[in-house]
Order: sequence, then structure tokens, then C-alpha cells
Amino acid sequence: MQLSVRIEAAVTEAIQLASGGFAGSERVPQRLAAALDHATMSGGARIRPTILLSVAKACGDDRPALSDAAAAALELIHCASLVHDDLPAFDNADTRRGRPSVHRAHGEPLAILAGDSLIVLGFEVLARAAGDQPLRALRLVQALAQRTGMPGGICAGQGWESEAQVNLSAYHQAKTGALFIAATQMGAIAAGQEPEQWEELGARIGEAFQVADDLKDALLTADEIGKPAGQDAALGRPNAVHLMGVSGAVRHLKDILGGAIASIPSCPGEAQLAGMVRAYAERMTPVDLGAQRARATGAK
Amino acid sequence: MQLSVRIEAAVTEAIQLASGGFAGSERVPQRLAAALDHATMSGGARIRPTILLSVAKACGDDRPALSDAAAAALELIHCASLVHDDLPAFDNADTRRGRPSVHRAHGEPLAILAGDSLIVLGFEVLARAAGDQPLRALRLVQALAQRTGMPGGICAGQGWESEAQVNLSAYHQAKTGALFIAATQMGAIAAGQEPEQWEELGARIGEAFQVADDLKDALLTADEIGKPAGQDAALGRPNAVHLMGVSGAVRHLKDILGGAIASIPSCPGEAQLAGMVRAYAERMTPVDLGAQRARATGAK
Repeated sequence: MQLSVRIEAAVTEAIQLASGGFAGSERVPQRLAAALDHATMSGGARIRPTILLSVAKACGDDRPALSDAAAAALELIHCASLVHDDLPAFDNADTRRGRPSVHRAHGEPLAILAGDSLIVLGFEVLARAAGDQPLRALRLVQALAQRTGMPGGICAGQGWESEAQVNLSAYHQAKTGALFIAATQMGAIAAGQEPEQWEELGARIGEAFQVADDLKDALLTADEIGKPAGQDAALGRPNAVHLMGVSGAVRHLKDILGGAIASIPSCPGEAQLAGMVRAYAERMTPVDLGAQRARATGAK
Repeated sequence: MQLSVRIEAAVTEAIQLASGGFAGSERVPQRLAAALDHATMSGGARIRPTILLSVAKACGDDRPALSDAAAAALELIHCASLVHDDLPAFDNADTRRGRPSVHRAHGEPLAILAGDSLIVLGFEVLARAAGDQPLRALRLVQALAQRTGMPGGICAGQGWESEAQVNLSAYHQAKTGALFIAATQMGAIAAGQEPEQWEELGARIGEAFQVADDLKDALLTADEIGKPAGQDAALGRPNAVHLMGVSGAVRHLKDILGGAIASIPSCPGEAQLAGMVRAYAERMTPVDLGAQRARATGAK
């Protein structure tokens, strides 16, 4: 089965669980259920769960139901972070993926609650999918928690933006790297492998996405990226393009992806996995478009 | 060891884990760490974890470290809910337990992130405490998730306040009952017992606290309850005092507590547990003060 089909099925099943089943129920607050649907079914690229399942497959994927649950759990946490990051207290974003952000469509109270509910649901999905592998499920809970909360997860990453003195390495690793590390490590855990040797691949993919995001933020329009552009400069956030210029950032991106491929541990699906990372590198083509435009208009 | 000592130690250990250890670290965002401390160390009564440990003891408490982790996890989720409920989008409360609310002291971004981090930490604490009982730990994760998220947990309970049509029974069970049911059921699970027969005790204690809270909100001053008073009437929320009057609500409260004691399953610590419920009933004395004052001033 295609990974994308597995991921959509797993995320859909989780959201139905949280909404009280297919038909809904009079004992379920329907507006919050609608906000959960909005937050998770808005055409995201599902990059993190795709990486997770790719690693699980490379490791043998001997418990596919557990891998699917891990993929859904990770995506739910990612969607929760987008909902909360878009809130007026943070990015104050009116749009996300070209649609109204959750708080613009459903109001701020339901956006806060949708994020909270999705975090909880992520852990619930893992616990329910344990089957005959309770230890793997527990390690998945622990890995996901470590990369989501404090002191090293995406909550910490966002928290750094409220500090007077920012530790840039800790900030980037937590803000963008954490869920990519979760992706590679949870894929390995779901398939019964040790997660440690998979950390570097996740960290490097995360770095690459951060640089790609920095390039998009600096160079593309809001229409092209589906959310407000130029936010880093407006909010004084660190951005690779400001630090090393467009061509420097593009070169840096290519180096990181090379390192990512080199870091893949020896495993049955090694070659396929390298192919996936290369495919992601190509998908980052908006970067090249942006770089060309920047050169044409004389921007740095 | 006294239950309160066990609970404080377990909550403190969890917050230290989330803050990168005793000494802190330059890789940890310190303001968010301070917000976590503020949210959890503000002199709460620790009612839910006390009930949890009381049930665990009544069931034999053969894995005290797991019981302690369950107690901490439940309290962390409760504290997270208070932080988010106080936000401007909900109660917009300036104070909590007589101190500034987390968003008033640390700003709204860190209050949102503190709540998120505490939710994650709750599940992390359970996973880390599994020891030789991975199945119990997983069931604890599942029970806590079910009573925290959607469709039946405290997130759903808060979500009902955004609905045009409120299912009052589902609303109360989710908003206040859920974490008390989690308390009794998680206590049983941590000690290796089946949780089903413990649901009613939790539900009834939750109902009693809801009625006691309604009485406080209607009758006491902000100084006396450590948070804004009269919020239910101001925000149009259902309140037992509005529905059945002060003396009706007090009578109802006593009936519920009688039912709670009667529902305690047969177990070695049954008598002690009944004593704990009676002690809570007496602790609700502000209710009687309020009722007397109401009669004296002619309020309904």
C-alpha cells in the first residue's frame, strides 16, 4: 500500500475516534470536532509521517499497524503545533495552507482546545495500537513526548522565541529538528529497532527543512507558500538567508542533504530511503525558483 | 509516607525533568521552565492525585513508583487545564490561588506553551515509570488520554462552552467529572486492578466538587476563593445554585457524597477510603459558610 494511503487512513481513524465515531454523537461537542477535522485535513504534505513510515519499511515494518499509529500520532502533534503557532499570541496568521487558520475559522477558544486535544490524541493513538508490543508502544510514547515537550521538543523550540538570549543550536534543534528526529526514531522503534542510530538522519532532514523554510519565508509570496511571508524579518527571528545570503543558504541546504543520505544506518531498505531523501531535496524546488527570482531582482 | 509528601516529590521530579535537571541548562528556555514551575507549584490542594493514591493504597499499591507517576501525571494535566482555562480566550482570569495567573505573570505565549508542555509531560512521566509493568503503564496512558482529550475528557468539557446547544450531562461529566474518574481508575490500574468498577466513585466525587464549585462561585468573594467570583452568571454558564437554590444545592451535595461512599468497591482499604471521602466532604465547609451568609443576606 502507498505510504500516503496508510497515513491518511491512520489520521482519519484517529480523528474519528476523537469525534465519537463516524456518525458523531450528541455527547460530543461538534464545533470542537469540526476544528479537529479542519486542523488535520487541510492538505498538509504529511512529510513527517512519510519519513516515519519510510524508516519503518527500511527496518522491516513487522508491525505495520503500530507503524501507522506512530505515523498518525506524529502528524497529530505536528498539526497541533501549527494550530497553536498560528494563534494571535504567536504568528497571528490568518491563513494556513491557503485556508483560514483554525482560530480564524473556529475562534480562539476552539483553536486552543483543538491543539490540546490533538496532543492528547497523539499519545492515545499510540497506547491503543500496542497490540502484542507494549514495550514498543511505550518507547514510542516516550520518544514522541521527548520531541514534543520540554526541555528539547517543539514546545521548547517555540519557547526560545520568548527568551532574551537565544541558544541558536538548541532553538533550531527543538523548533524544527525535533519532530524529524521523532520521525526517524519512531519509525525504527515501531519496527523493533534501536532508535539511537537514527537520530542523525532526522536531525539533518530537519536542518534541511529549516533552511528551505528560511528561503521560502525570505523569497516567496504569501500566495506561494500558503501562509504570511517575511515573518522572520518582521518578528526578528533568526533566518539562514539573513545570515549567509541566498546562494550561501542554497549551498548549505545541499550539503545538509548530502550528509543526511550519508548518515543512513545500514539496513535492508537503505537504498530506497536514500531515494526518498533525494526526492524531498527535489521537492524543495520553490527554493530554486526563489533564488532565481532573487538574483533577477538583485536581492541578496 | 504521607500521600502529600509522595505527591509533591513526584510532581517536583517531573518538573525537574522538563526543566533539564536541578541546575537548569543553557539548552533549556528558562522562561518557559519558570512558567512550568509557576503553573505546578502554586499551592494547589492536589485533590485528584490524593484520590488516586488513596485508591491505589486501597488496592494494595504494589508498585508505588508507578502510582506516584500516575498521581504526578494527573496533577500535571490538571495544572495544564487551569493555565489554559485562565487565558484571555476563556476565563480571562488575572489571578489563580491568590497569585497572578500564568499568562499574567509570564505572558500569553508562555502560558499556552506551558499548558502544552505539561500535557506532554504527563504522558512522558507515565511512560518513564513503567518499570516491569509496561501493560499497566500503557493502560494509564490510555485512561489519562481518554479523560483529558476528545470526545469525553476535559478538553471536550471546555469545548461544550462554545456550543450553541449544550448537552448538560455530557458537559458536566467531561468538564469536572473526567479527571476525578481518571483519579479513581488510574489508582486502580497502577495497583493492578480493573478500572471499570472504580468509575462511579470518581464520577460522584466529580459531581460533588462541581456542586461545591458552583456554590463557591455564586456565594463567596474573589479573595475567599483565590480567583474571580460570579463568573458562571457573568459568562452564562450552568450553575447548580441557579437551578436549585442554595439549600437545594447543599442537599444535593450531601446526597452525592453519600452515593460516592456507597459506590466504593469491596477492597482491603475500603473503610479508609470512605474516611477520605468524608474528610473531603468536611473540607467543603466554605459551602456552609456561604450558605449561612446567603441566608443572612436573603440571597436565594
